[in-house]
Order: sequence, then C-alpha cells, then structure tokens
Amino acid sequence: MAILKGNAVIGQSGGPTAVINQSLVGVVQEVKKVANIQELLGARHGVRGIINNDFIPLKNVPDELLERIALTPAAALGSTRDKPDEAYCHKIFESFQKNNVRYFFYIGGNDSADTARIVNEMARKAGYELRTFHIPKTIDNDLRVHDHTPGYGSAAKFVASAFIGDNYDNKSLPGIKVNVVMGRHAGWLTAASVLARKYDNDGPHLVYVPEVPLTEDKFLADVDAVYSKLGRCLIAVSEGVSVPEKNEKGHYIAWAEKMAKNIERDSHGNVQLSGTGALGDYMAGLITRNLQKPGGKKLRVRADTFGYLQRSFPGYVSDVDAREARMVGQMAVRYSQEKDQDGSVAMQRAGGGSYKIETILTPLHTVARETKDLPLEWIENGNNISAKYIEYAKPIVGALPAVGTFDEIK
Amino acid sequence: MAILKGNAVIGQSGGPTAVINQSLVGVVQEVKKVANIQELLGARHGVRGIINNDFIPLKNVPDELLERIALTPAAALGSTRDKPDEAYCHKIFESFQKNNVRYFFYIGGNDSADTARIVNEMARKAGYELRTFHIPKTIDNDLRVHDHTPGYGSAAKFVASAFIGDNYDNKSLPGIKVNVVMGRHAGWLTAASVLARKYDNDGPHLVYVPEVPLTEDKFLADVDAVYSKLGRCLIAVSEGVSVPEKNEKGHYIAWAEKMAKNIERDSHGNVQLSGTGALGDYMAGLITRNLQKPGGKKLRVRADTFGYLQRSFPGYVSDVDAREARMVGQMAVRYSQEKDQDGSVAMQRAGGGSYKIETILTPLHTVARETKDLPLEWIENGNNISAKYIEYAKPIVGALPAVGTFDEIK
Repeated sequence: MAILKGNAVIGQSGGPTAVINQSLVGVVQEVKKVANIQELLGARHGVRGIINNDFIPLKNVPDELLERIALTPAAALGSTRDKPDEAYCHKIFESFQKNNVRYFFYIGGNDSADTARIVNEMARKAGYELRTFHIPKTIDNDLRVHDHTPGYGSAAKFVASAFIGDNYDNKSLPGIKVNVVMGRHAGWLTAASVLARKYDNDGPHLVYVPEVPLTEDKFLADVDAVYSKLGRCLIAVSEGVSVPEKNEKGHYIAWAEKMAKNIERDSHGNVQLSGTGALGDYMAGLITRNLQKPGGKKLRVRADTFGYLQRSFPGYVSDVDAREARMVGQMAVRYSQEKDQDGSVAMQRAGGGSYKIETILTPLHTVARETKDLPLEWIENGNNISAKYIEYAKPIVGALPAVGTFDEIK
Repeated sequence: MAILKGNAVIGQSGGPTAVINQSLVGVVQEVKKVANIQELLGARHGVRGIINNDFIPLKNVPDELLERIALTPAAALGSTRDKPDEAYCHKIFESFQKNNVRYFFYIGGNDSADTARIVNEMARKAGYELRTFHIPKTIDNDLRVHDHTPGYGSAAKFVASAFIGDNYDNKSLPGIKVNVVMGRHAGWLTAASVLARKYDNDGPHLVYVPEVPLTEDKFLADVDAVYSKLGRCLIAVSEGVSVPEKNEKGHYIAWAEKMAKNIERDSHGNVQLSGTGALGDYMAGLITRNLQKPGGKKLRVRADTFGYLQRSFPGYVSDVDAREARMVGQMAVRYSQEKDQDGSVAMQRAGGGSYKIETILTPLHTVARETKDLPLEWIENGNNISAKYIEYAKPIVGALPAVGTFDEIK
C-alpha cells in the first residue's frame, strides 16, 4: 500500500509534563522532512480544537522558536480534559475528512490512546485511509506495554530532588514531615522519593503507595517506630494512598475519599476540607493527636503537598527524559512513512547490561483504557520500595544533585 | 588593640536555605588561613550545641567534602528554633569562656543577630575579649540595613520558576489557580512571582502580600475581573496575607489566623483545618462558592502551597546567591582579623549602573529584632508588584528558564 498523501493533525491531551513539548517538536521537525505530509495542523486544546476547526499550521514554525517551546512545560498547543465518547469521535472523524487529514498524532496517556483507537476504527469502517499514532506522555508512568513514559523521568527527578532537600531540612530541624506526591492510582512517582537516599538513615523513612492499602493503625505504628529510633521521620505518601476497603469497581478506596465523606458529616457548610492540602494536613493531625505524649517533648509535625510543581517545573528536567520525549515524537512520524500501520510508540529496554532504549509500535488497544500499577513485589513491608525500583528508575531520572554531610568524618 | 588569639565558634540558626552552607564553608575556608584562630568549633544545632558542648572541629575538614556540603541545602551543622533569653545567653557565654572562644560567627536572621548582640554585650560587661559576627541568612529577605540576604535569591528563583511552569500549566488547561508562597510577615518572596512574566497576559495575574490587607470582597472582585477577561487566573498569595484588622501589637491579622478561629467554632474535634494547605484550600473554596454561576461553565479552581521546597530545593540555586552567601562568610572572618570590631556583615549595592555588591559591617543592634517589609510604594492596587521590584530582584535571582509560545507567530 502506498504511503498516504495529505495533511496531518497533532494534538496534546491531559495533564501537563515538563517535556510534553519535546514530543511535539520531535513530530514537527520530522514532518518538515516529509513531502507526503502537506500541512501539519496543530489542534488547539486537543480534540476540542479538532471539532472546532481551531488549528495552528506548524510546518513553517522557525526552529529557534520550536527549540524554546521544547523547553517550555505544559502543552504548547493547549490541552483538554475532554474524554470523547462515540459521538464526539465521530465529529473528530468528520473534521479529518473535511481537512483531508491522513495522519493523526495524539500525545497523551491511556485515555488519549483510547480516543485515537476509536477514531481509527471509525475511519477503517468508513473505508477512509487514516494512520493514527499515539505518542506517550504522563508523569504517572502507568501505560501498559511501555517500559516507562516521557514526562515521568523529569517528574521523578523533581520528586527525588525535593526529598533530598527535605531530608536535610528535616535533619537540620528534626521533626515528623509528611510529603504528599502525585499519583491517584499508582505509586510510580511516590516511589521516586527513595532515589533521594544516599547515607544510612536518610529519608524518606516511610513510603506509602496506593497499591498496598494502609490502615491508620499501621501508619501510626510505623511513624512511632521510626521517630523513636531516629528522632525524626520523613514520609512519602501518594495522594491516592488507600484503605483496605474496595469500591464497586474492585479498587481500594482512597484515604482522601474516605476522609472527605467523614468530614462532610461534620460540616456546617463553611468548612471545606476537600482541597489539595487536606490529606497531608489530615495525616499530620493524626500523628499529633495520637503520638504526642502528654508532658513529653512537643512533636514538630508538618505536611507539604507538592502539587502541580511536579508536572510543570521548568529548567530542571531529566536530560534522558527530554531526549526520549523528542525521540518518540520523531519515531511516530517515521513509523507513519514506513508502511500501513497504526499504534502507540512504546519505549522498551534493549537487552544487555547498559541502559539502551528502542521503540516498538504497539497496537492502540494494548495501551488504551487500563493502566499499569507499580509491581507489588517492589513494595516492601507496605512502607518501602525495593532496590529493584532504583535499578529501574536511575537511568531514566539521571544524575541528582551532589550532597555532603559532616557525618562522613565522624 | 591586638588581634585576638584563641578558638572560634560557628553556628547556624532558624529555617534552612539552599545556600546557608555556602556561608559556613566560606567561614571555614577563610579560617584555615588565619593562624590566630586555633580551632573552629562547629556548634551542632546552633546555640543548643554551644550550651551542650556539642561541637565538630572544622579546621581540618577536607575541601572536597566542604565543597559538597556547600551545595547541600539546610544547615549542615544542624539548626535550632531556640530563641535564647538572658539566662540562655549567659550559658553561651560560659561555654565560650570554658573553651577559650574569642570569635563567634552566627549564621541566621534577625533573631540570631539579637542573640549575637546579647552575648557580645555580656562579654563586654565581663571584660572578656570576644569578637561577634552575624552572617545573614533568610529566604524572607527581611533584614534591615542589608540590601538583600543570602538564601533569598535562590528561593526567589524557585518561586519565579514555579510560576513560569504554572503559568503554562494554567494556559494549557485554563482555570483559577491559587499558589501560596512562604512569608508570614513580609511579601518579598511572593513578589518574586512577577519575575515569571514574559508575554502579555502571563501570570501571576494577581499578587497579594501581607503588607497591604485584603478583604474577601476585593479578592473575589479581582479574581472575577481577571477571569472574565482572560478565561483563566493565576494568583500568588503570601501565607501571611492579612485582613484590615490589627492585633494588639499593631500588625494586621492574617487570613490564616482569622480562618482558624472561625473554624474552631464550627469544629467537633476531628476537623483539623490549621495545616499548611488550609489557606489555599480556603481561598479556592471561597472562589468556587462565590464565583460559580448557577448553570454556568464549571469553574476549575485549584490551590497549591509551595511549602518547604522553597527553602531547601537542591541543584537549582541562583548562582549569584550562592556566590554572595560564600562571600559574606569569608568577609566575616576578614573583618574579625582587621581590628577590634563586631557586627552584621551586610551587602549593599555599589553605585553605578551595573549590579555590584560590597559589604559593610553594621552594628548588631541595627539588624536585630525588627524586620523590613516590602516597600509599600512597590505594591500596586493591592494586587500587583511594580517594575521597581523587578529591577531590584533580577540580578539577585539570575537567569530564568527560556520559554516560548506559538502566540509569538500569531
């Protein structure tokens, strides 16, 4: 089958990452070399731009600007939280027909892969020639088939660095500190906190991820044990940390969800406890109420919620992550010119001792919808992450800041 | 009067900064050259180490380790929140006599300058020869006489960068976002958010500092005006943002304080709303309750509280700040060997067009106790910071990440 001639659409979807525009720029630069692709239409705010015919032509954007955009966090074309249903996908397909679009590149997570899959199937049923490519992006690192996803390495570097700093902060002014890390369903990003450890007794001393449920009793016993031994305690907790109860979908219920329900009962209308800071503040309050000994030394308990910084902090990305994000964009275009094929551009580790990545094109349905948890065997004692994770993550995150302590000369 | 022979003590106090150890290393390296100073005793956890005779000898610490410690955030000797009274200061003085301490270098903010001042006066009254030097450190940037303080530039770079990223995040997925920045009494660090602006309509669109009180009505009217115009709104607010009511000391009362009181009345014991995230969540709730139009487009309102990251994030400091922090440490030792003098090592701008810093030794009492607010004339309309601040802060913060947007080609 001949390589298609026509226009291409590219869109970005879902939550930002610090390197999502590297993938966009990878596509633009590669498309510039491809005569078959006449115009590359950048859809503003993802699928919404497609159905509203809101496009930016990208083939002639100067390289100097593209290189600055590549360094800029968050979707340069604008993003969307729209999750298209069948009817919405049909409108996308209509826009493609109208604009003679023969290539669809969609940068996003598992939901975006699903959108790409539905549109692709519609085109096939209608006998309309379309090549569809999902380009991975998510700090959650939860795509099936993919060894890891662009955006994760930079978010993980941010989290690991934050814990390096906070470990020294906590050592300098000892107390109990809870840090809430992004991740509603999977613990990948929270796991990155353990990369911060260098010396014995470095924090985080306790790490909690959604995959293994946590009772308040275990949490308090864990904190008490660490604090009694070290006189301080640094805790990493996923925003989705769960209780040992499942909802109707078979997923563990989050602490935050349970908390919100309990609090609602108490509320008089003007107490608002469902915000970003609520989980951390709740856990800190739990510690103070239960572990403060009457007449004992006053516990210094604090909580921080890292928030959006994790996904959009500029100027501090993982070099490997930035490079790989660019590459998956480039590879999507190359796959599109190779033969009649569609899929998600997935990174996989090449065999051999050293870290080397190659890409494969995996069918869209293998990535769409369901996500991938942190392997249960990497979670130790419900409160720690094993060395296997460190081995996996180190090359993706890259070098972390050099530090030193006078403990070395003791 | 001859230059004193004897030992020296150095200590670190108060909240961490990312460059506080640069000052420590500046002192150690300079003391290595000074034969009059026989041993340099590093007090563990500040004044507490002095009264507990808990010291690390520093004169022979290898330079390789010192250079790594200089890059490590938070007090490498340990810090303390102890605020010594007269009796505590007397114990410090006794420790100095016992250890033949003739030089006291104390790295900290205005409280540390006050401790240094009291101990210094005790020594003078007792006829004990002691030279006392306060070395500035605070992300709050609130020391009188000092043009700015080491630690501020790096914290400001972090805050400005965070707002660059969050501006693109907010542009990519439009909504209303509140970011709470450190600063209980002064708005210096929150002001740094405006360094993030590059293009028209870049955020932060609203900036609130403690120096000018803010009513809920004005806040809501401001947010409504920005959101109506731009379809999004990014807000920087100091944790100490205040209401137009004063306490018995004549200071404006903080929103957080007032909020906590109101909520306490409603609480049934298990609602805890005094945590770090509470102010941001409260402000977000206020916006949702008041600006969400019935049947209108659902407002996307979020809040983040930057927290400790601002004072201890590693690997992302301002180069100028790091260099200056080292310099004030070195200068303290040089002043100690010049003549019989005591004081706080203060940076001041040399005249002329370009940024150039020189140090003076200012009497301890000129820095101790009282702090310095953001100049009222730099605050515009109660919700913005003027270009005068940008001129002041730019050279201290240094280069910020390069960014780009497709708006450039519109």
